[in-house]
Amino acid sequence: MTTRAYGVHAADKSFEALEIARRAPGPHDVQIEIAYCGICHSDLHTARSEWGGTRYPCVPGHEIVGTVSAIGSDVSKFKVGDTVGVGCMVDSCQHCAECAAGFEQFCENGFTGTYNGRTPDAPGHTLGGYSQRIVVDEKFVLQVRHPREQLAAVAPLLCAGITTWSPLRHWKVGPGSKVGIVGIGGLGHMGVKLSAALGAHVVAFTTSEGKRADARALGADEVVVSRNAAEMKAHANSFDFILDTVAASHDLDAFTKLLRRDGTLVLVGIPEHPHPSPNIGSLIMKRRRITGSPIGGIAETQEMLDFCAEHGIVSDIEMVSAQDIDKAYARMLKSDVKYRFVIDNATMA
Amino acid sequence: MTTRAYGVHAADKSFEALEIARRAPGPHDVQIEIAYCGICHSDLHTARSEWGGTRYPCVPGHEIVGTVSAIGSDVSKFKVGDTVGVGCMVDSCQHCAECAAGFEQFCENGFTGTYNGRTPDAPGHTLGGYSQRIVVDEKFVLQVRHPREQLAAVAPLLCAGITTWSPLRHWKVGPGSKVGIVGIGGLGHMGVKLSAALGAHVVAFTTSEGKRADARALGADEVVVSRNAAEMKAHANSFDFILDTVAASHDLDAFTKLLRRDGTLVLVGIPEHPHPSPNIGSLIMKRRRITGSPIGGIAETQEMLDFCAEHGIVSDIEMVSAQDIDKAYARMLKSDVKYRFVIDNATMA
Repeated sequence: MTTRAYGVHAADKSFEALEIARRAPGPHDVQIEIAYCGICHSDLHTARSEWGGTRYPCVPGHEIVGTVSAIGSDVSKFKVGDTVGVGCMVDSCQHCAECAAGFEQFCENGFTGTYNGRTPDAPGHTLGGYSQRIVVDEKFVLQVRHPREQLAAVAPLLCAGITTWSPLRHWKVGPGSKVGIVGIGGLGHMGVKLSAALGAHVVAFTTSEGKRADARALGADEVVVSRNAAEMKAHANSFDFILDTVAASHDLDAFTKLLRRDGTLVLVGIPEHPHPSPNIGSLIMKRRRITGSPIGGIAETQEMLDFCAEHGIVSDIEMVSAQDIDKAYARMLKSDVKYRFVIDNATMA
Repeated sequence: MTTRAYGVHAADKSFEALEIARRAPGPHDVQIEIAYCGICHSDLHTARSEWGGTRYPCVPGHEIVGTVSAIGSDVSKFKVGDTVGVGCMVDSCQHCAECAAGFEQFCENGFTGTYNGRTPDAPGHTLGGYSQRIVVDEKFVLQVRHPREQLAAVAPLLCAGITTWSPLRHWKVGPGSKVGIVGIGGLGHMGVKLSAALGAHVVAFTTSEGKRADARALGADEVVVSRNAAEMKAHANSFDFILDTVAASHDLDAFTKLLRRDGTLVLVGIPEHPHPSPNIGSLIMKRRRITGSPIGGIAETQEMLDFCAEHGIVSDIEMVSAQDIDKAYARMLKSDVKYRFVIDNATMA
């Protein structure tokens, strides 16, 4: 069985239409006709092999939403016609302690990424959501309970949403929490929406004076332009939790200083060049901590999707056709998107 | 009222005998005849103004043990003849939220250090335990319940003990925990003893092959020479908690890699030159955290002293006379002490 996809044949090549193979659904598999797929910065890093180790042809995409078109004989959680999603993982070892605990993202044997992961299927590595169809073990498929007309804007929840949701939940953000969100992009705009919906007092940090009104509109109670020292100082020692979505190398001390005693700075981006070494005195004197968080587990992703459906939360997106992926990448590199590109996979036909 | 002390008149001067003033005990004060005072690395940093801001004459010392010789009219916790201790703090604002919660070490208005802190008493800054007598608000005096003959070895508990105890307790180290202690010196040797007594599986990390047997004798279940890559690798992803007592700039990644998911690396030393910037990917992939911890609060210090009395825990010390403080500093700089120098204050007479 083949399906239409968009991918690249090498790090320096443009996207082009491909025909790729998908396996016939096994007993536990769900076959999904993909309606939309979000464009994540990781897609670009992988397509261009900026992290190394990319296998070609490369078909990125791990913010996938669509409709179930077939199910295996043993599938119990889904039926044909269900609206579903697939995120960053399509498999894991399913027998280690982490998998057993519902922490597939920490699988001791390594989870299988939705693209560029090893698989027995042709061509030996997984191919992602920039395609019209995908076949996935039901354990890694999520129910989408949003109204169907919101579906395109649901797609980015599968990566940008869960990557911000997971640390907010792990660190118990809720009513009474003062939360900072650093960087108002694909991840940050979800961080603002989700922490506001969780009942926190949300302060958005941006380097752009021009994003003040936008951040407010997303749900931030306050907006701080981080280049403004006086604005920063006014928040010293006051945050329970700061979610820093900026991957570019930057001064972490500016944010640790804003944490109260036992406050937490969570990083979700891996910088290409190291951040300046953080001030240890600032950590010691108020027992502040710096930590990181990857994506979330499957149960947690379902929890996030259900929370978003209940609270009417989706991403702010700009839809693009499959033929414009390269253009979207160029604009993403300039942060010229509010706040996530989503491919209309119908344009692949 | 004056008392004999040992102090320095400038950063580049040697220790000499001084006569210093102590206030008459006020209603809430406890007057203590000091028997012994531990020598902490902070004493050296302050005497030599290596952190800047030292006020002279400087009389260091914040690992103080002795006997109550007078009490103020309103003192209820102590009586004359009690064996007591004083640690790093002699006062705090006592009205902020942190003080109210028993976290005097995090006092929002700044606690008063046992030496070099501002005070209305002459000469305007506090003078520490390198002296024969001290007068302290009873709130900052600790009961010592060890046998009297162990008293000299109790002194270092007041700083080295509580600085390691506080993070071990805060991060809930106990039976079932796998704990690493990095650096087997004044703080580290207490970290090993305390975490072993708390029931943890303790691994000592040292750069010195020669410290293997010593670390075992202190109570470590295993000893790793951190320069040995194979030994380090064997412990990858396995620690719940690592207490890093090394202040000198070093590679933190070597230790974060050894933490399991959600494991914690706690730093208790402020490096003069920054550590190499830690690898953020290592934090993100297993949600590991780097944090710091200062001294402990008064209630927590009493808890530690009582625990140590109950478990027969004291420091390993080498006693010195007041005339040999400079020599002790020189040896401390070469790590030539097992594991803490303690001044016999009777030698000041």
